[in-house]
Amino acid sequence: MERSVEIFDSTLRDGAQGEGISFSVEDKLAIVQKLDELGVTFIEAGNPGSNPKDLEFFRRVNETQRKHAQLVAFGSTRRKGIKAEDDGNIRALLAADTPVVAVFGKCWDLHVTQILGTTLEENLSMIEDTCSYLAGRGKRVFFDAEHFFDGYKENPEFAMEALRAAQKGGAACLALCDTNGGCFPDEIARITKAVAEAFPELTVSIHTHNDGGMAVANSIMAVEAGASQVQGTFLGFGERCGNANLSTVVANLQLKRGIRCIPEENLKLLTATARAIAEISNLMLNKTEPYVGSSAFAHKAGMHADGVMKLPRSFEHIPPETVGNERRFLMSEISGKAAVFSKIQKVCPRLTKDSPETGRIVKKLKDLENEGYQFDGADSSFELLIRKNTGAYRPFFELIHYQIISSRPTDPSASASAVVKVRVGEKLQLMAAEGNGPVNALDQALRAALEVFYPALSKVRLIDYKVRVMDGKNATGAKVRVLISSTDGRRVWTTVGASSDVVEASWIALVDSIEYKLIKDAEDILLGN
Amino acid sequence: MERSVEIFDSTLRDGAQGEGISFSVEDKLAIVQKLDELGVTFIEAGNPGSNPKDLEFFRRVNETQRKHAQLVAFGSTRRKGIKAEDDGNIRALLAADTPVVAVFGKCWDLHVTQILGTTLEENLSMIEDTCSYLAGRGKRVFFDAEHFFDGYKENPEFAMEALRAAQKGGAACLALCDTNGGCFPDEIARITKAVAEAFPELTVSIHTHNDGGMAVANSIMAVEAGASQVQGTFLGFGERCGNANLSTVVANLQLKRGIRCIPEENLKLLTATARAIAEISNLMLNKTEPYVGSSAFAHKAGMHADGVMKLPRSFEHIPPETVGNERRFLMSEISGKAAVFSKIQKVCPRLTKDSPETGRIVKKLKDLENEGYQFDGADSSFELLIRKNTGAYRPFFELIHYQIISSRPTDPSASASAVVKVRVGEKLQLMAAEGNGPVNALDQALRAALEVFYPALSKVRLIDYKVRVMDGKNATGAKVRVLISSTDGRRVWTTVGASSDVVEASWIALVDSIEYKLIKDAEDILLGN
Repeated sequence: MERSVEIFDSTLRDGAQGEGISFSVEDKLAIVQKLDELGVTFIEAGNPGSNPKDLEFFRRVNETQRKHAQLVAFGSTRRKGIKAEDDGNIRALLAADTPVVAVFGKCWDLHVTQILGTTLEENLSMIEDTCSYLAGRGKRVFFDAEHFFDGYKENPEFAMEALRAAQKGGAACLALCDTNGGCFPDEIARITKAVAEAFPELTVSIHTHNDGGMAVANSIMAVEAGASQVQGTFLGFGERCGNANLSTVVANLQLKRGIRCIPEENLKLLTATARAIAEISNLMLNKTEPYVGSSAFAHKAGMHADGVMKLPRSFEHIPPETVGNERRFLMSEISGKAAVFSKIQKVCPRLTKDSPETGRIVKKLKDLENEGYQFDGADSSFELLIRKNTGAYRPFFELIHYQIISSRPTDPSASASAVVKVRVGEKLQLMAAEGNGPVNALDQALRAALEVFYPALSKVRLIDYKVRVMDGKNATGAKVRVLISSTDGRRVWTTVGASSDVVEASWIALVDSIEYKLIKDAEDILLGN
Repeated sequence: MERSVEIFDSTLRDGAQGEGISFSVEDKLAIVQKLDELGVTFIEAGNPGSNPKDLEFFRRVNETQRKHAQLVAFGSTRRKGIKAEDDGNIRALLAADTPVVAVFGKCWDLHVTQILGTTLEENLSMIEDTCSYLAGRGKRVFFDAEHFFDGYKENPEFAMEALRAAQKGGAACLALCDTNGGCFPDEIARITKAVAEAFPELTVSIHTHNDGGMAVANSIMAVEAGASQVQGTFLGFGERCGNANLSTVVANLQLKRGIRCIPEENLKLLTATARAIAEISNLMLNKTEPYVGSSAFAHKAGMHADGVMKLPRSFEHIPPETVGNERRFLMSEISGKAAVFSKIQKVCPRLTKDSPETGRIVKKLKDLENEGYQFDGADSSFELLIRKNTGAYRPFFELIHYQIISSRPTDPSASASAVVKVRVGEKLQLMAAEGNGPVNALDQALRAALEVFYPALSKVRLIDYKVRVMDGKNATGAKVRVLISSTDGRRVWTTVGASSDVVEASWIALVDSIEYKLIKDAEDILLGN
């Protein structure tokens, strides 16, 4: 691999501008560690001048070691009319004690006169003074050329002068920003090329936003035009529509163009890193996220599934394991028998396509789909279905009875209560619980009753609950499908139930969730896991 | 505006390949209507050969009229070794009775030999025969050149021969597909240009997938290279990482490049259309979706918010109202007041922006949104909210008490029963009912109790019921939002309720539905309707 680019991650700085994102110091430390393990080049970790919590973070992070990444503190050029050394923000930048600082300055004449309210000359001095002050104190200075592309389109001379001011001040890197996120790949390529040709001694970096849905493509086209650093956030979140998604950029450049972004052996950490950062950020990782989403290699159409089984590259642009992801076959009325069979074989390798059990499972699957089930996304219920039809199953408990009472007006702490009676072996167990609504009350009561027999269930938490009304025309009498995702801290599994009664549909998915956990625990014992 | 491109929406066909997507016939009819109102050129609505439900859909949709869009049925070229007229899938395509049919065929030699298991010659005949058979029966034939780009990169002669076979067979349009979704904008542009130059008499269309996160950019670059039709799905969902997101493509092309995609006056429907399609598909529309997401014009950084207030274009790539979206300032009191006010004035024209009632409604609305309400699709609940805060409301009944019992095992005809007691004036009414589940039982009992006083309610039917779990992480204790659509045969109205108890959320939406009906009946009397 001849060429390489630097990856500059701003998840902790520009990413924190995303709606609903809020990092604690602990969150930030954990994300720095994940990004460093993956091997990004720079981590822009905060804005110490505008956020006092960030100074505390920099103090703590500087006590730890990193393998690959250099830390960057972010701030703005000095305010108009004062000296750099008198600007509190710039003093805060130095106090962050990072090897690299990124300072942003105005490159669009409109912003200088209309927003900052100063002259073009003073703006150029602000850029040069700030870079030179920081460079003089031993910092490597990256100049973030704010609104560079919009500015260049309206006044290319002034935009280029701003870059020259940064260069004169000693900046090592010019980061060209599409701050408003509306530029097109062809514009980005043309303008980046002009800058790279004009500043051959400096690193040219690209910083894009996704307001036109093209942040990744814009970054890639800038690299092709001469940029050698890409700024973005690891999951693509950030102000408004977000920043360029670095997990996509890294995979695209390294796998498709042979341009090194992170150590080759770390590419397979990409999916796990994305999922860990989503977890720390308290976000659901988008299923359809390129490369790292759970649907990125999920095949639904029967013909696609058949093709992939014959020859993976027929319907996969890369082998999923390259980025640490995995292939999945979704079950649906349009998916073929071959995909179903490959799942059956995973659970029960002795079965062939012609075994009577295979035919029975395929038929049962179709019947259940007609009743409103959908196993696409509920692999664990599908595994139980296979087990129930091949003898590899025994029930872990028997329901004797449940009764739920919802009422209004009611005790404000709980709008419903449930009583559940189960039998395990010879023993009967009655348990009552209250909850927010009938399903929550039933969930609490059932799990309390079964924990008496199966203490391992106390580790199980439900992490997602979805309700889909299938044929809205029957209104409150319509069929609903419930999907429940559970975890025991080690595994995550999803189960499904369908019924015209939301309580019953939830009950079915809940029972599957519990049985699946108990079966996997038994399997672990047998396999010595 | 000189140039235009055709917009070919495949939400109902390729979109249905997305994980977790499952459309009922009613859902599909509703989406066709939304897309037609927006003004797309073609709606690819199903695959009648592989999905028998789709034939039923085509029968129903052909009974309705459309303003803009032509319907397309999708299928494959004939199977190897048989005649087109003997292929059941092709007969199903004709039976769908659409003006346009899209047939896909193999353009990558690898697929022909390894997946189809036939010769390159037979594959070319399959393409030509199928196009010519369908064109001979009066269909306008679009040829979907599957894996065109990957095929062209490995064997350009064969890929081009496949297109020539379609042309010979009478195809009117060549849709170049990046089926595996891994191509780059520069490759897409180069190859599309070669095709557009070789087939100047035919429409060249671009069909991209998002496995590299660049489906939108790839579509745009293809249009710049000569494509005059873009295929995609309206929210970008589809197989694996999804298809090109048409809501982004349309806005990009029409607003930034002056290329007409939909009638100019309909651009402002873009956001409402995206939200309605998400609602019908039971998906959460991604907040960060370009142009139409709720964060697309949300400003968090203080400096950005200040800049936008001085001069919107300083931090917004387009004015949000152009696409029917709105600007928001996060964590601020002034968000959306103008938008809310325009709704308030519709119900209560005497109010001004400064009336104390206006401030009260805006505050109440914010509180309710924090509790999980969303009034976007529930205008009737919003009207009631305005009425309750301006004195234009009186309650039609008082709930004394309800109690619902769900149990299992149970009478198979009804898994729940409800008792409701209401007061109207001085009169008390107690009513009991059974139902499929707690919500259905409550619905039956409440309406039976109120019909004693308001016989007009016997005409009301609930026609849709949707449940949306808002924060899945709290599992069965999560907040849910319930949307109910009702009709009395003359009007259709939608109401909303939110709670962590699905029964309570349904109750709130149900009460709004009934009150709205009674208020509209009273209005009709006053206005002499």
